[in-house]
Amino acid sequence: MKVYAGLAGIPVVKSSISYIDGEKGFLEYRGIPIQELVENSSYLETSYLLVFGKLPSKDKLSRFINDIKNNLYLDDSVLKFLKDIPSSTHPMKVLQSIIPVLSSKDPNTDVLDEKHHYSSLVNLLGQVPTIIASWKRIQEGKEPVEPDPELSYSGNFLYMMRGEKPDELEERIFDKCLILHAEHTINASTFTAIVVASTLADFYSAVSSAVGSLSGRLHGGANERVFYMLSAIKDIDDIPAIIDKKLKNKERIMGFGHRVYKTYDPRAKLIKQMLQEISSIKGDSKLLKVAMEFEKVATQRLKEKRIYPNIDFYSGVLYSLFGIPPAFYTPVFAMARISGWIAHCKEYIKENKLFRPTQIYDGGHNIHYIPPEKRG
Amino acid sequence: MKVYAGLAGIPVVKSSISYIDGEKGFLEYRGIPIQELVENSSYLETSYLLVFGKLPSKDKLSRFINDIKNNLYLDDSVLKFLKDIPSSTHPMKVLQSIIPVLSSKDPNTDVLDEKHHYSSLVNLLGQVPTIIASWKRIQEGKEPVEPDPELSYSGNFLYMMRGEKPDELEERIFDKCLILHAEHTINASTFTAIVVASTLADFYSAVSSAVGSLSGRLHGGANERVFYMLSAIKDIDDIPAIIDKKLKNKERIMGFGHRVYKTYDPRAKLIKQMLQEISSIKGDSKLLKVAMEFEKVATQRLKEKRIYPNIDFYSGVLYSLFGIPPAFYTPVFAMARISGWIAHCKEYIKENKLFRPTQIYDGGHNIHYIPPEKRG
Repeated sequence: MKVYAGLAGIPVVKSSISYIDGEKGFLEYRGIPIQELVENSSYLETSYLLVFGKLPSKDKLSRFINDIKNNLYLDDSVLKFLKDIPSSTHPMKVLQSIIPVLSSKDPNTDVLDEKHHYSSLVNLLGQVPTIIASWKRIQEGKEPVEPDPELSYSGNFLYMMRGEKPDELEERIFDKCLILHAEHTINASTFTAIVVASTLADFYSAVSSAVGSLSGRLHGGANERVFYMLSAIKDIDDIPAIIDKKLKNKERIMGFGHRVYKTYDPRAKLIKQMLQEISSIKGDSKLLKVAMEFEKVATQRLKEKRIYPNIDFYSGVLYSLFGIPPAFYTPVFAMARISGWIAHCKEYIKENKLFRPTQIYDGGHNIHYIPPEKRG
Repeated sequence: MKVYAGLAGIPVVKSSISYIDGEKGFLEYRGIPIQELVENSSYLETSYLLVFGKLPSKDKLSRFINDIKNNLYLDDSVLKFLKDIPSSTHPMKVLQSIIPVLSSKDPNTDVLDEKHHYSSLVNLLGQVPTIIASWKRIQEGKEPVEPDPELSYSGNFLYMMRGEKPDELEERIFDKCLILHAEHTINASTFTAIVVASTLADFYSAVSSAVGSLSGRLHGGANERVFYMLSAIKDIDDIPAIIDKKLKNKERIMGFGHRVYKTYDPRAKLIKQMLQEISSIKGDSKLLKVAMEFEKVATQRLKEKRIYPNIDFYSGVLYSLFGIPPAFYTPVFAMARISGWIAHCKEYIKENKLFRPTQIYDGGHNIHYIPPEKRG
């Protein structure tokens, strides 16, 4: 008997939510290529697609959007709590912490009743962005900005984060960025969500646990570290030497390489295009120039090893252009992934099987209790 | 390729924390039979044993107990939050919610630094009982009872729950009950904890997620349902008919049967002895009489199928004698399991491998995006 460490290569679900071809570098949500969704859809429409399996009718979509907009506001108790938390608390902790209590205002949390899934989804999609943005403002010693349901979903989030309304370009590109982060088959956080859901705990408990999982430095958080790496580069001409030094020291280059993709991550390609669109309109930022050059050099050096930039390489750069502080990059990832997590929970419990793996015991037997005074 | 549904029979860890022999009905923690620990140890000493692998020296034990007693008090922000939460919120949600923010007052949460594990353990063992007891009081519209570090760990918990000091018998038996619930190899909640820990998220995030997992009705909560089943029995003479009806209808009998034990659950045997001790001193309660008779009849009927009472059959009855309300049975289970969860997290990350299982995709490909106006 051997241990399946990390369960690498072990299929734990049959799933029809998303598909990755790592050799060809493509990604589909419910069979639709990610490029088509980024080009034509919105984050909320894509969320509906992921969770319910097909694109909504016009009426269903507008009802869905309305229901979410009616759920943007936080309960007073949640706002009070945010103001009481020590201001040094990381936003991922705040998110993991608030999500379970959101269930207390939702009378429809029975996961065995399919109709209840809609309610959890709408509540979480509505309130999580408000929690993140409110926490950012509170950490800065400012009052939270009230949601503005007249704005688009993404427009409202950027507005609540910054206190000023974004322009059309920012709003549109941020929304596409949420689409790119909404789903990506089974990883540690999605797996956490379905393990919790398999006990028939409600989706609030499952999503909160997934946030906890995403907070780990081996999972979410890579985009934040890419940002720091790129920000530390003083001169573009230093880049080849910096990369060569890292390669010589066998350091991992943050934002490069992916378990599944053996070619360019299709999401990185799309974010790169977005960055180029922004820079063609607003002009280049220094960080963007550094990122482009870094990517060019690192890709040349790593091509033979089939290591390419992943989504995390560019997403931090994009968020920084939107005025989002680094500690909030992973929370934005979490906010986008809510629909993916819920889609997987919903799918899993349909033919639910409680997760109960086993262990190989390698300890002693029949050891006796020794009273404290006789211990060494 | 097949799906390993629920990962039944798949070993995910090598572990030396606990061992079950389901055929013989015995359970060991770090190789020591559970009976010896229940007879001689305390919950805190057993927690130390589980997490650090061996019984502490006299000095280490007294330092450990002191450090926990110094951590019984809740931060003002936590108390304020408890008072703000809607009073209908289930205590398991409250627990899942508060635990992540406890990390904000702990400067030592780097899981790769072994010294930091002690700090998480001591904080969680200290504060979780206070959170549970405070929430019970607040739900009842009463002020939380301040911890009394002069009392034993279990004595203080019962005192905070009820507002009056327990007698020696209650204190002693409740502590043994915590020992019985402290650890039980890999189940859904322990698995959740190690999946989260494998991302290198801190132990607060891992334990909060495990609480979320334990809140599911297929996992924790069986003891609560046994209590309701037994409470509903009006007359002891009705028991054979009630059981026969359940068996005829192929209903599952709550509190009977276990995935691993094919004989009497050793923990159930020990709790039964404790109940007998209590009743010999304090006299029989009606509930206890009903439970004893129910067990006798059900065990006769189910013996051929090798189905026996499990720990959940008697633990609710015991908690009810201690004045603990049914909604708090699973939180008490969670509180006792903290040491088991942390022991597994600590063990797992020593040779950490991020959990990343895979899926078998069974959806479509190359489906095109259709604009809303053209959808059916």
